Amino acid sequence: MRVSDVVFLFVLGAAAALVGDHSHVVTDTTEYLSHAVPSVWSSPIWFPILVGAATVSLAELRLHLRAPRTSVSARHGLAGVAAVIGIYVVTALVHTAQAVPATVLIYALAAITWCVLGDRYAALCGVLAAVGGPVVEAVLAKAGLFRYADDGVPRTLMGVAM
Amino acid sequence: MRVSDVVFLFVLGAAAALVGDHSHVVTDTTEYLSHAVPSVWSSPIWFPILVGAATVSLAELRLHLRAPRTSVSARHGLAGVAAVIGIYVVTALVHTAQAVPATVLIYALAAITWCVLGDRYAALCGVLAAVGGPVVEAVLAKAGLFRYADDGVPRTLMGVAM
Amino acid sequence: MRVSDVVFLFVLGAAAALVGDHSHVVTDTTEYLSHAVPSVWSSPIWFPILVGAATVSLAELRLHLRAPRTSVSARHGLAGVAAVIGIYVVTALVHTAQAVPATVLIYALAAITWCVLGDRYAALCGVLAAVGGPVVEAVLAKAGLFRYADDGVPRTLMGVAM
Repeated sequence: MRVSDVVFLFVLGAAAALVGDHSHVVTDTTEYLSHAVPSVWSSPIWFPILVGAATVSLAELRLHLRAPRTSVSARHGLAGVAAVIGIYVVTALVHTAQAVPATVLIYALAAITWCVLGDRYAALCGVLAAVGGPVVEAVLAKAGLFRYADDGVPRTLMGVAM
Repeated sequence: MRVSDVVFLFVLGAAAALVGDHSHVVTDTTEYLSHAVPSVWSSPIWFPILVGAATVSLAELRLHLRAPRTSVSARHGLAGVAAVIGIYVVTALVHTAQAVPATVLIYALAAITWCVLGDRYAALCGVLAAVGGPVVEAVLAKAGLFRYADDGVPRTLMGVAM
Repeated sequence: MRVSDVVFLFVLGAAAALVGDHSHVVTDTTEYLSHAVPSVWSSPIWFPILVGAATVSLAELRLHLRAPRTSVSARHGLAGVAAVIGIYVVTALVHTAQAVPATVLIYALAAITWCVLGDRYAALCGVLAAVGGPVVEAVLAKAGLFRYADDGVPRTLMGVAM
């Protein structure tokens, strides 16, 4: 990737992280327990940095797996970003709902997004994000940095549509 | 259909029924009044059996109506199943909302699903499910087996995307 | 446009307006303060007339901008109408939610709708509706005809998918 692509993807991931995390904080889905580092909007500064870096890393990985599909346009990219951010805020909006319908809705939306936009490499990147995201979260939650009311679904979606 | 197809569709319909019905029970959308038969998760055992059998019957009917479209892939099938289950749990999530916006949302989602995936035969199967499902429900509710807080929309969707 | 097209689009826009506005009124998203004119369902009669006329005007404008796309079928039209009405009632269903996730969800849904159905002329019509709608609303709200609890997003969507 060119530097401009790296910057673009980092900013995109970080911006989506800030919007989604703000949605989680204002709905009490997430509560930050430590305020030792500076905040950006509702998030400690390491959160958008982590998500931005993960976005760049997954894109880089995807390019190493296989050449990008030529049939994918900027319109698909916009749709994918809108889908991921839309699903992200839905996790905030339904967090007070019962666990099964809320979780099933998120999985259904992720599956539909993949059906429309994904391929097997996107699925692999999605699975990596779905494993890696919660692992990082579990470590940080264990370290007492935040409390997470739901089951870590949101971050698992970040790589699905890429 | 081969036996394996029948088994697959039966299990698929029954599993979707269990997920959706659990969502209805935990949100008080549905309340079972009789506990005379064994339960599976939140449902009396006849419920997943009925929905599984209806799923197989609609698929069989669809095959008799006309040869399946060759343009439909497994990806379309997954999207259709995710759409139906997603809409099903949305009926649980919005059941406390006002009737008109909640019902219009469900119809809009069903219409979009049909626009993306359906054809005229799917529409016919959907209408059959939309008539047959509530008729069965009305009989069972009249018999005092359960109380249904909403208007029977969910089951009407089971056949839409098939 | 032929007269029958004008009548069809007017009725379509007016009907969508009545459904959406009823949803806003029953959820207290909108409150009409003046009852000086006759009502249709939950709306003063000028509301469906304004939206119906705006629908016709945007369609007329779109035809002047460029010939309609030949790749668009009635199925696309139905999907677009279902998407607009579906998004409209979602604005009613989420109006008690926190502003950022609710607003981001609406924008994400509008962006996805445009990605699937829109072109640059649709985007232009959408922007016109997004500017014109709230301007009219602001004037009417200033005149004391109604109080609007949210930020005017819904009406901005009316032209997106056309």
